[in-house]
Amino acid sequence: MPPPPGPMEVDAVTDTQGVTIPDPLTRPIRSNEILGRRKAPPKTQWGVAAAAHSSSFRQGPSEGKPKARRWDHRFTEESLARKGSQLKGAAKYLGNPGLISLGGGLPSSEYFPFSELSLKLPVPGHFEGTDFDAHATTVSAGKHDLAQGKSIFDIATAFNYGQGTGAAQLLRWLTEHTELVHRPPYADWACTMSVGATSAFDMALRMFTRPGDAILSEEFTFASALDTATPMGLHVVGVSMDQEGLLPDSLDAILSGWDPAARGGASKPFILYTVPTGQNPTGATQSARRRRDIYRVAREHDLFILEDEPYYFLQMQPYVGTGAREQRQAPPPPRSHDEFLASLVPSYLSMDTDGRVMRMDSFSKVVAPGSRVGWITASEQVVEKYKMHADVSTQCPSGMSQLILFKLLEEHWGHGGYLDWLIHLRLEYTGRRDNILEACEKYLPKEVVSWVPPAAGMFHWMRIDYAKHPRYPAKSVTQLEDELFMASIAHGSLVMRGSWFLTDRSVEPDQLFFRATYAAAPADKIQEAIRRFGEALRESFGLEGGGGGGGEANGSKSVANGNGV
Amino acid sequence: MPPPPGPMEVDAVTDTQGVTIPDPLTRPIRSNEILGRRKAPPKTQWGVAAAAHSSSFRQGPSEGKPKARRWDHRFTEESLARKGSQLKGAAKYLGNPGLISLGGGLPSSEYFPFSELSLKLPVPGHFEGTDFDAHATTVSAGKHDLAQGKSIFDIATAFNYGQGTGAAQLLRWLTEHTELVHRPPYADWACTMSVGATSAFDMALRMFTRPGDAILSEEFTFASALDTATPMGLHVVGVSMDQEGLLPDSLDAILSGWDPAARGGASKPFILYTVPTGQNPTGATQSARRRRDIYRVAREHDLFILEDEPYYFLQMQPYVGTGAREQRQAPPPPRSHDEFLASLVPSYLSMDTDGRVMRMDSFSKVVAPGSRVGWITASEQVVEKYKMHADVSTQCPSGMSQLILFKLLEEHWGHGGYLDWLIHLRLEYTGRRDNILEACEKYLPKEVVSWVPPAAGMFHWMRIDYAKHPRYPAKSVTQLEDELFMASIAHGSLVMRGSWFLTDRSVEPDQLFFRATYAAAPADKIQEAIRRFGEALRESFGLEGGGGGGGEANGSKSVANGNGV
Repeated sequence: MPPPPGPMEVDAVTDTQGVTIPDPLTRPIRSNEILGRRKAPPKTQWGVAAAAHSSSFRQGPSEGKPKARRWDHRFTEESLARKGSQLKGAAKYLGNPGLISLGGGLPSSEYFPFSELSLKLPVPGHFEGTDFDAHATTVSAGKHDLAQGKSIFDIATAFNYGQGTGAAQLLRWLTEHTELVHRPPYADWACTMSVGATSAFDMALRMFTRPGDAILSEEFTFASALDTATPMGLHVVGVSMDQEGLLPDSLDAILSGWDPAARGGASKPFILYTVPTGQNPTGATQSARRRRDIYRVAREHDLFILEDEPYYFLQMQPYVGTGAREQRQAPPPPRSHDEFLASLVPSYLSMDTDGRVMRMDSFSKVVAPGSRVGWITASEQVVEKYKMHADVSTQCPSGMSQLILFKLLEEHWGHGGYLDWLIHLRLEYTGRRDNILEACEKYLPKEVVSWVPPAAGMFHWMRIDYAKHPRYPAKSVTQLEDELFMASIAHGSLVMRGSWFLTDRSVEPDQLFFRATYAAAPADKIQEAIRRFGEALRESFGLEGGGGGGGEANGSKSVANGNGV
Repeated sequence: MPPPPGPMEVDAVTDTQGVTIPDPLTRPIRSNEILGRRKAPPKTQWGVAAAAHSSSFRQGPSEGKPKARRWDHRFTEESLARKGSQLKGAAKYLGNPGLISLGGGLPSSEYFPFSELSLKLPVPGHFEGTDFDAHATTVSAGKHDLAQGKSIFDIATAFNYGQGTGAAQLLRWLTEHTELVHRPPYADWACTMSVGATSAFDMALRMFTRPGDAILSEEFTFASALDTATPMGLHVVGVSMDQEGLLPDSLDAILSGWDPAARGGASKPFILYTVPTGQNPTGATQSARRRRDIYRVAREHDLFILEDEPYYFLQMQPYVGTGAREQRQAPPPPRSHDEFLASLVPSYLSMDTDGRVMRMDSFSKVVAPGSRVGWITASEQVVEKYKMHADVSTQCPSGMSQLILFKLLEEHWGHGGYLDWLIHLRLEYTGRRDNILEACEKYLPKEVVSWVPPAAGMFHWMRIDYAKHPRYPAKSVTQLEDELFMASIAHGSLVMRGSWFLTDRSVEPDQLFFRATYAAAPADKIQEAIRRFGEALRESFGLEGGGGGGGEANGSKSVANGNGV
């Protein structure tokens, strides 16, 4: 297997200001270490639809670490009823020397109408602007690279059927990456692939919840999560938040005072669904301290945590303001992979001594949503249940996607090159975040709009002081939200209504928010959209002129470009 | 959009004997017709995560056709509770001229680490042996082909988020292909993508069944389907079969005499799950007459049919025996796309005047299982429910897979080139089927083994006359099956035990079968595996020598190669 060229070839990480950061030895060493510690796998490991287990890829010592709790008493009838496929019983004979199998109905790869797949991929150290394409190198996968000893993964293998875990070739990389970043503190943790966190959440709910149950989440939450849970007959109970997200005391109070009678007969919740980093929609990021407090409450009330972390690697540089002076005081970007990893808020997985966390990781925000490849990390028992469900529903993520990710992550970038990419994204999103905040400071009427600078993710959450609105209380908060939303549309700017993300929609909201994303639009468009939103607010609130005008909107361009966005 | 080159460039279909069949004008005309009838779509149709609807792509007249029945009274609470995502409410403003959206949290394609994806694809007329690679042409997708007017699909679009339907670019092709092959006889049919038929079956059961319900299927059925249904608390009731599969009278008898008390309280079934063509494991193919009879029973008892058709395009040439004389009498391969399409057994979808069929199509046996892209065809009401579930669980198939299939099917082959490929597979599988049957005739003891030549699919189903076994009735059928299975393993040949596919496992089976696949192994290996299986049977039954010996196994090679396998 060729070593990942990424880290070896690269001498520097370049930040968005074009400043070159000397490359510390730690990087190549770190990923060489991982390669060096790899166990030599049995050849069968790489075969078509071969069984794959994280346990063969974990590198850290498990001695002295606690074993995960078992959740037999918590699994649903559906989950408990899953037995591995009987046909797999035949698999154990496939190792017999000389055996010819007429067993599995797998199509022959001679009927896959593909001879080769090639990708042009960016090279670490050259992620910026025109460099991206100019230095891109082509990586190819042939049909029979495995048989020909060219690679451990190829079209004949990846394009055939697979296991619920996904292919060992990519699962190994995912397991190593998870260990590198989170170092789970219990012995029997494991990874298995998902077809995305949305599906992983759906499958976790079918594993642990029954119609009529209640689950817990942030008071403003990812709307699609509600759309997944509600049709299953689940009541999603919102936990109060502050600028650091979930409040442990609110969580504890809800659970301590839980009264089934007052909750439509629902027994005390077992599942907490949370987006700890750059939460959608609030942009809130739970601090390390906050996470430890919530984990403690989870232990006290025996909660199982579904940690949904699509934005984990969109943690940004600390916000210092956008003036030249502030920029000079801005802390420098991470100078090594160690510095970068140390800068990340620790995950629930990294503090999960009980095995009561199922972490959902995603490539959607850091590689591409269209891969529909994600993975979960949890105890081997939970992972096995998940895998058995996948085998008879989603089966496994696209083998085409798996081969593309394998070529990028394992053979082209390696662990080091991927961390370079994540550092690049960190600085890109820092620039985008700074750009929208600058626009807000410039164009929004601060007397009625307030916000906390997001530390991670894609979303800026703006609180509107509706009490200052001339038509309040004549109009309800919802009516005012609607008026402001339509006014913004009329001014040519679309921002999302906060109430669309309310967990509990039965009560009239007493807070008014709008969500704006800085992930998608170009910098100058973001400046202009915020300017228009500010105009709409002033008009509706009947406030005086304030900032605005195309000139400034254009002026913002240079700043934006200065931010490398 | 470039016209599909496939059919235009190709002058001939070549069969497995290397005989060139003159290419009838009908082929290019047929797919030109489809292109010519295409409606000019709104440009927005091709955008990132744009809504897609089959209705924009259906070409046949719907006037005078009946509307599908509505199933509101049959949907589960879960399915009825699904509402479209609230956030999509914002989408309707995206058309406003000049509007800048800070709404959807879609990542910018500048953060997809891919510049180009290329594929080497085989060319119609050159699917044989070395021709496959020698004539393969390279097709590429760039990051911004859509914006640059080079294609309607690209990396920036396909690799971003999508809709539950899948992307319009591929959905159009799937809808046209479905109409070309099946011409559904009701007005409001539609297609939507699945992440594979296994997932489609899982989602259909959650749409129409509740724990404790009974559903119907063949008495020997796809084992994984049982593994999907049973954990949901469903009882799968087996319907008797003959060599044409499901027996309408048995189906009618079960439903007419249905007694909930005798069925553990389960009410009369609504769902019939069937694999009508090349059924797994029996290889049985329902004739057109048989399908019409079953559809009539389904109407009488108001059944909804889940038509699972992975092997539909593995229908083979009629079996005439493998001797030279028979070969001369063998009917010629299809000489045109019309002849090919006319040769296919009509699907349930093609006779579904009520909209009581959900057809599940798959690329797994005809392109590659690893795409994890399939599609369903049903009434718009059922498709909409399915799509809303997908939006909050599987989301959509991999965009990477969708782009690869789009490049192959839409831009490289077109409809005509794909039919050429399917004709190629038809002849390849005919050769494989003939090869295993020749081996069976040569090596198996006919006094205790009997079979019906499969007309479609991947599986050969062999009945063992266990009554002739010296240890019967001392040993039960299951014990004898185990003895024969282990004997075959000992002789170095793996075939699957029939009882693994039993729908009702509560009663001791009174039939003994083994399933062998001819899809995977090379021809000479298949000959040798059957020879060993024959040896094992003779030994266990205490029969005299009979055919066998490496010589013949080698001798079979030439025949096999003669068959182009």
